Amino acid sequence: MLRIIFLLSLLFALSTASVQDFCVANLKRAETPAGYPCIRPIHVKAKDFVFSGLGTPGNTTNIISAAVTPGFVAQFPGLNGLGLSTARLDLAPKGVIPMHTHPGASEVLFVLDGAITAGFVSSANSVYVQTLKPGQVMVFPQGLLHFQINAGKSAAAAFVTFSSASPGLQILDFALFANDLPTELVSGTTFLEPAVVKKLKGVLGGTG
Amino acid sequence: MLRIIFLLSLLFALSTASVQDFCVANLKRAETPAGYPCIRPIHVKAKDFVFSGLGTPGNTTNIISAAVTPGFVAQFPGLNGLGLSTARLDLAPKGVIPMHTHPGASEVLFVLDGAITAGFVSSANSVYVQTLKPGQVMVFPQGLLHFQINAGKSAAAAFVTFSSASPGLQILDFALFANDLPTELVSGTTFLEPAVVKKLKGVLGGTG
Amino acid sequence: MLRIIFLLSLLFALSTASVQDFCVANLKRAETPAGYPCIRPIHVKAKDFVFSGLGTPGNTTNIISAAVTPGFVAQFPGLNGLGLSTARLDLAPKGVIPMHTHPGASEVLFVLDGAITAGFVSSANSVYVQTLKPGQVMVFPQGLLHFQINAGKSAAAAFVTFSSASPGLQILDFALFANDLPTELVSGTTFLEPAVVKKLKGVLGGTG
Amino acid sequence: MLRIIFLLSLLFALSTASVQDFCVANLKRAETPAGYPCIRPIHVKAKDFVFSGLGTPGNTTNIISAAVTPGFVAQFPGLNGLGLSTARLDLAPKGVIPMHTHPGASEVLFVLDGAITAGFVSSANSVYVQTLKPGQVMVFPQGLLHFQINAGKSAAAAFVTFSSASPGLQILDFALFANDLPTELVSGTTFLEPAVVKKLKGVLGGTG
Amino acid sequence: MLRIIFLLSLLFALSTASVQDFCVANLKRAETPAGYPCIRPIHVKAKDFVFSGLGTPGNTTNIISAAVTPGFVAQFPGLNGLGLSTARLDLAPKGVIPMHTHPGASEVLFVLDGAITAGFVSSANSVYVQTLKPGQVMVFPQGLLHFQINAGKSAAAAFVTFSSASPGLQILDFALFANDLPTELVSGTTFLEPAVVKKLKGVLGGTG
Amino acid sequence: MLRIIFLLSLLFALSTASVQDFCVANLKRAETPAGYPCIRPIHVKAKDFVFSGLGTPGNTTNIISAAVTPGFVAQFPGLNGLGLSTARLDLAPKGVIPMHTHPGASEVLFVLDGAITAGFVSSANSVYVQTLKPGQVMVFPQGLLHFQINAGKSAAAAFVTFSSASPGLQILDFALFANDLPTELVSGTTFLEPAVVKKLKGVLGGTG
Repeated sequence: MLRIIFLLSLLFALSTASVQDFCVANLKRAETPAGYPCIRPIHVKAKDFVFSGLGTPGNTTNIISAAVTPGFVAQFPGLNGLGLSTARLDLAPKGVIPMHTHPGASEVLFVLDGAITAGFVSSANSVYVQTLKPGQVMVFPQGLLHFQINAGKSAAAAFVTFSSASPGLQILDFALFANDLPTELVSGTTFLEPAVVKKLKGVLGGTG
Repeated sequence: MLRIIFLLSLLFALSTASVQDFCVANLKRAETPAGYPCIRPIHVKAKDFVFSGLGTPGNTTNIISAAVTPGFVAQFPGLNGLGLSTARLDLAPKGVIPMHTHPGASEVLFVLDGAITAGFVSSANSVYVQTLKPGQVMVFPQGLLHFQINAGKSAAAAFVTFSSASPGLQILDFALFANDLPTELVSGTTFLEPAVVKKLKGVLGGTG
Repeated sequence: MLRIIFLLSLLFALSTASVQDFCVANLKRAETPAGYPCIRPIHVKAKDFVFSGLGTPGNTTNIISAAVTPGFVAQFPGLNGLGLSTARLDLAPKGVIPMHTHPGASEVLFVLDGAITAGFVSSANSVYVQTLKPGQVMVFPQGLLHFQINAGKSAAAAFVTFSSASPGLQILDFALFANDLPTELVSGTTFLEPAVVKKLKGVLGGTG
Repeated sequence: MLRIIFLLSLLFALSTASVQDFCVANLKRAETPAGYPCIRPIHVKAKDFVFSGLGTPGNTTNIISAAVTPGFVAQFPGLNGLGLSTARLDLAPKGVIPMHTHPGASEVLFVLDGAITAGFVSSANSVYVQTLKPGQVMVFPQGLLHFQINAGKSAAAAFVTFSSASPGLQILDFALFANDLPTELVSGTTFLEPAVVKKLKGVLGGTG
Repeated sequence: MLRIIFLLSLLFALSTASVQDFCVANLKRAETPAGYPCIRPIHVKAKDFVFSGLGTPGNTTNIISAAVTPGFVAQFPGLNGLGLSTARLDLAPKGVIPMHTHPGASEVLFVLDGAITAGFVSSANSVYVQTLKPGQVMVFPQGLLHFQINAGKSAAAAFVTFSSASPGLQILDFALFANDLPTELVSGTTFLEPAVVKKLKGVLGGTG
Repeated sequence: MLRIIFLLSLLFALSTASVQDFCVANLKRAETPAGYPCIRPIHVKAKDFVFSGLGTPGNTTNIISAAVTPGFVAQFPGLNGLGLSTARLDLAPKGVIPMHTHPGASEVLFVLDGAITAGFVSSANSVYVQTLKPGQVMVFPQGLLHFQINAGKSAAAAFVTFSSASPGLQILDFALFANDLPTELVSGTTFLEPAVVKKLKGVLGGTG
């Protein structure tokens, strides 16, 4: 009995020293450059470290026949501060994840089903494209333009991970055509004809 | 024509400024604390960013009925410097990935097939265990003891990603029993009886 | 006089630009992944940068004949954000700091008194053990299992520093046997017989 | 005299401890993820910390009536490892720095001459545009699409700094149209008509 | 129309995943080691990314005939978390920015007008001095003593950038002589005669 | 037997995945911004993680009656890449470690013997001074001017640790007076009279 008392007092002393193995996000508090403030360890539960939103295909009945389902810190608070986040890609036949970047993270993609042609372009304008089968992994370096398209006749899916809990996602067409950036500026900074810009603004809901 | 010449000279000027979007590892050179030296961009090919070693189940006919197949920088040089690495877990029925840590990275696990009971223990000795189905994701904070076991009757598999190109992998039983750390030291620092230590050393190939 | 006025106005202008040389922790506020919010500089005092808790030996009348006295950010708020923390180890004769890891930091140990046998095990399961005398320093790389035992006949002590204000401390036996992780899971993931697990759970206060 | 000998021996002892205040790049050696290996301190000269290439306007007689002159680590080896790099922008009347990103750095721009309309688009597709006069500074967060155009009738110029010695520079039109990425892929991932893609490939020297 | 609805729902889904491209500082909240908490993205405006305080010369009618005008996070909240900050130096004829350090950042200096002799001293006590003309850039490695003096007969000015949003600024003479550090301590730790210390304390407003 | 063969093959497979738990410096190779290249793991020995140079007092028979004995990466290669380094301070009666900074690291000081008055000055020119007894710890934030003086009548000693393997050490008087920085520049940037500068240059071996 004495041994246990000795031991437990030691245990108590030591465990008070053990802080911030993790920092489950308190999404109600203001974010900081390093992530969200943590909820108190006593309120953390096993399920905070699990995310179930990537188990079923996203809805691909849209213009790109594809879906990106994020499991970032906003959806999966256990990731906060751990330098990782997740997502699922679904591509119906002919589906396309259009040209996009993640401004704050590199990405690894693991093909679950189907065949996917994926590629990125470097700062030197070199193109790195590969067609991937289930089980193959591709890495996309931080911040570079990249895309994924369905390379087969059946649905394709992939699980992706990012090197940040908050990688960002900038889709080229939305960045150019789905806001109020004036047509003249878009055209002038992309070499696209104003008519082309206006047409895509029309499709994507942009103005100006 | 003049336009093109003007443009190409601009292109040339700009592209010389664009360095190190990525740093594919030259595995023949000595590593540094930040990773391997890069191969020259001119020698980089699209396939350097693809890894095909995780597409098939690892061999689970072993004592743990399980396999860990790494896709770290040593196997997948395109990861070098990008802060990410990958692996595949396979668990035959009754298979177990025994207690282990990754000293240099947090981990996210995506269940591909079967059911997996996974858990980790915090510095405060709290236990976070969940049984996961395909498509569920669990995150394991850096450096903490964790495990995965097959929770179903069929084979299970998972794709995992780490927050470092070189996460390390320290399997508890191997660290304790598969080397020449003297039985007396192992016993003295774990509270395990010397006979227990010696027996496990016997099974795991340790000496001393 | 005019000079001084000129100068003081300059001084005032410049000093408003000078922020966050340090960030003394406000421990009442929620932690973030980068540490605690800072108290306002005007409330910072010289004593916030001093910690007096390591000057006397910890209580070693316990099962391990040893004590770890932490000087982490929770005890020493001036460390917040500076990437360092401290502790003191005391080892009575036959004392042992059992196998443990610091999930978030490397450690340097400076022997103050006595003789200490210290060691760590790498991911490759290699063992690095040395017996240290007063004044010798040993470094333990981040996240690896390590231990310290009294190698002499008198009390031993060491001052240790970590490469993080919040290094964590996971003691192997407490992680395995001092909580409610079911015996079956512990046994299944460590290769230890259930009877061995149950016995240690009994000693260390675990259940299940 | 004795004092000086004492002192010089101290000075010698201390200075051997002082390493890597800086790490001037040895550009002949292979880069690592953290930058180039350093030249030996004894070979470092004051001029290694100075770059003179930004003092005169770049050549703007090209299709964009603009020039970007880099002062990255490849041009300015003293920056290696210091987390900063530089460039100069020149914009003739009607000049445009087209839509581009820096995959590895944030940017601050200081207007030297003329008027510049600059803007960026966030991941949420919000647009942040401002017209800047000499002496005004604008910051562009890492990895986001941004542009600069001459907003006046005379030449404009700016000095820019990046938060990395090797920020990268991906110009949208060059990434899409100045390489061999097949027209079908470009069109399919951008919603641009194949004819539009082919025309721009023609102007920018792309194939496929 | 259906297309647009499909698209907008996709757009909505994706944009919720896009967080923290930037983190404009909420200066009313307590700082953390990684910077200030962010204001909500909905309140961010283009002008938060612009700073206009460096466009006009600082007041140089003071003892050093010089001025440092900061554009740090406290003045320019859009810099928060982006790893950069800015300042302007103005040097009237014979003006001097006295010996100082930035404890938390390296610096690049771009000469706008006039001639500036700038230099720094390394840990090995080597001196790196250069006289710079407009358009020349010099880099000062983190934490080292450096200075700038007007090397011509007319006013000189420079734009500087730092590798941190909060670089700090420690001016040697103010640190030594403009506070209540006792003369005995200043003298004892600098080898300056007490009379010299007292005189400078008198000029700079120090006591003790 | 079969079990062991199964197990050893597993062990072999797993251990190949385990890289860079540590990176013992190869000091013969050129440094990089992240530290030295690593020696191969097979050549690493336990003693690489031990440093014995801090066990005995440094030679204090010099002008400052004090000594700093470094245990940086150059002396202690096992520290490479681990973000920590060490040193020992010895102060004979009346000994002084003069005003200095560590440009690349914060510092914690643990008093071993005697009494030490230590202090630092912040960017806001506030002074934080404390007199420390054995066992007390003080932290000095990165890059700020600080000092230590013997506050008692017997020898004093301290063990210090830094938050970088290569913290640098810039001693104010050596930086100002022990090199060839012209007296005019030193005087002009410090407000010290030329005669004072020349005298200290004489004592400290400087020229110019």
